[in-house]
Amino acid sequence: MSDDSPFRPAGSTSELEEGLALTPKFDAEGLVTAVATDAASGEVLMVAHMNAQALAKTIASGEAWFYSRSRRALWKKGETSGHTQRVVEMRIDCDQDAVWIKVEQVGGACHTGRRSCFYRTVPLGKPGAVTLEFVGERVFDPKAVYGKR
Amino acid sequence: MSDDSPFRPAGSTSELEEGLALTPKFDAEGLVTAVATDAASGEVLMVAHMNAQALAKTIASGEAWFYSRSRRALWKKGETSGHTQRVVEMRIDCDQDAVWIKVEQVGGACHTGRRSCFYRTVPLGKPGAVTLEFVGERVFDPKAVYGKR
Repeated sequence: MSDDSPFRPAGSTSELEEGLALTPKFDAEGLVTAVATDAASGEVLMVAHMNAQALAKTIASGEAWFYSRSRRALWKKGETSGHTQRVVEMRIDCDQDAVWIKVEQVGGACHTGRRSCFYRTVPLGKPGAVTLEFVGERVFDPKAVYGKR
Repeated sequence: MSDDSPFRPAGSTSELEEGLALTPKFDAEGLVTAVATDAASGEVLMVAHMNAQALAKTIASGEAWFYSRSRRALWKKGETSGHTQRVVEMRIDCDQDAVWIKVEQVGGACHTGRRSCFYRTVPLGKPGAVTLEFVGERVFDPKAVYGKR
């Protein structure tokens, strides 16, 4: 972790699991997993990552910030698209390496234009090659929002 | 990935995002992130990981299998505790590096005895040191289920 993390280092297992202090257990890349669900429907909207700075900014502002591993950059959700996430509730898991945020999602969470990134189901009970089924409709045109990619 | 993966290698971005083939984008450790939610309440129960074998077994059996990074082992959820997860629906995300399973959870998902691993909230709007709030009650006694640890 960088020296400017506002969080104390992760403690013992019992401190992590039963303690009152938020001491996130960041991985070797300085990240925790973040799951965003729709505060109204409960649908999982996206899975992303937060570094210490993204987590601190999300806690302080109540708006979702993440860290992009591919772009190696802090980003505020919706900064380009306008599709921001207001955080209604945040929870931390037992070993403090994952956060769950319940959000009010403006527009769509997924850069492909869907409300949720999880717009395809995986049929069960069929070993071998699996054909996905689309279940999520586009709620915006990604070309119009992000430009030609 | 190991040679015995039943999945084809991940394709191009457009194949991953708009294709009908399940071609998971496993990370350097051969894992995808797995989020389990309660099929009835929508609550996030746990965040874990699946390797190709765990994912294939989950798809074939409809019971949740994961891969433990700390134990470096495939495990069937509930194999020790009896707290299995029957998968009602599985979804894959846009870039196929995360799966969402909606499950019928027997007992509790968390090894600490709670229904969900996310049993503490993080207060928002309070920068700096954060005091967690417990919201999830124990539904089983972990010492009775797992023995003294």
